[in-house]
Amino acid sequence: MLTYTLYYWPVPFRGQFVRSVLAHVHALWDEAGIDAISTLMQTAPAGQLIPHMGPPVLTDRATDLSLAQTPAILAYLGRKHDLIPNDPLHDALTTKIIADSNDVLCEMTLNNGAQMWTRESWNAYRPRLGRWMEIFEETGRRHGLTANAGYFFGTERPGLADLTVHILWGTMTAKLPSLRPTLDATAPAIAGLSDRIGALPEQIDLCARSDAEYGNDWCGGQIEASLRAVLLPA
Amino acid sequence: MLTYTLYYWPVPFRGQFVRSVLAHVHALWDEAGIDAISTLMQTAPAGQLIPHMGPPVLTDRATDLSLAQTPAILAYLGRKHDLIPNDPLHDALTTKIIADSNDVLCEMTLNNGAQMWTRESWNAYRPRLGRWMEIFEETGRRHGLTANAGYFFGTERPGLADLTVHILWGTMTAKLPSLRPTLDATAPAIAGLSDRIGALPEQIDLCARSDAEYGNDWCGGQIEASLRAVLLPA
Repeated sequence: MLTYTLYYWPVPFRGQFVRSVLAHVHALWDEAGIDAISTLMQTAPAGQLIPHMGPPVLTDRATDLSLAQTPAILAYLGRKHDLIPNDPLHDALTTKIIADSNDVLCEMTLNNGAQMWTRESWNAYRPRLGRWMEIFEETGRRHGLTANAGYFFGTERPGLADLTVHILWGTMTAKLPSLRPTLDATAPAIAGLSDRIGALPEQIDLCARSDAEYGNDWCGGQIEASLRAVLLPA
Repeated sequence: MLTYTLYYWPVPFRGQFVRSVLAHVHALWDEAGIDAISTLMQTAPAGQLIPHMGPPVLTDRATDLSLAQTPAILAYLGRKHDLIPNDPLHDALTTKIIADSNDVLCEMTLNNGAQMWTRESWNAYRPRLGRWMEIFEETGRRHGLTANAGYFFGTERPGLADLTVHILWGTMTAKLPSLRPTLDATAPAIAGLSDRIGALPEQIDLCARSDAEYGNDWCGGQIEASLRAVLLPA
């Protein structure tokens, strides 16, 4: 039985964070598709499922509740499916990891394609991408994460923070593989965590379905073309 | 007794969301100042209070816990001081309102000053700013908010969502008053809510102290100068 409907473009990017959690909890969902998303975005807020600017939007079909904004959707799913540690510190750290991930997505796409990458701007940006990797790595290190074992916050089972890390760094470097050596060198524990999550049967299955549907796309559009261009050897 | 230390620039912008909550719960805090922030930002993540890219950072002095990312800091304070409704929907809606607010801040500053406003780009953006106001207004309307009374989600006392709305729209239009007529016309219930929160003694006091320290600044820097330039009559 379908339990959710997801409104997101047919690419990984922000939508894949939601899909990864849905797959992890064995939820069945359908994707509303491009036409439905476009219609929703052109509707006045008073007529929208939830007043919002852009996708992702997730509808919980059991309650007919809709939510927008990736951090809000993830927090809702995380709480509903018990994927967030039940203490104020680790709750807040999960929120921080999601906010950091959103910042990385914005930066990697120059704010959703507001500008296009040039070789100069990319070269200037690369150290900052490395610093983001260091920030994630140090967060993991302080919570006992090692390259070979462990999840975030030392629990025995993966949570929302782990799934988020996998989709941010794992999906990014799977789609843009020239970035993977930097991740391995800069953030080995994060790379290991991402691989461990990616090896879970639910994530292997999601990844295969997404690859079949979205091909090699990560964020899509002109901004992805400009990103791929600067990642090629000069 | 000081209970928190806040690391943020001497301007309202993101820091004011945190200050507003601290004032609301009668916390005493000090501000670390520009030099301490700059030093922290230049420190490798392994040596930072919490691995992060930029301020705000908040240290809870009782537990020596530090957090970064406005949404994470607000969620931590909101939960600690019982400012978030204790159900999954309204919890997620609070998260959404904070994420929406962050998007508006990013857009109004062209991603923290990555570009400068021109009259052309501002004119192109204005309808989208109006749509953000509509999104907030419709969210309020669906939860019983009216121009003359009520808080978000129908509780008897203000919560994190209300404080966030006040700092986003109230502070923005106080510092950039030419935007206030658009807010009044487009989002009267949100304007009313913002005014009701701004009339609380704690917020009057914070506003007076901030005005004395930060003058007329909103986000500060070159991006604020370019924003003020396009807000002047042609």
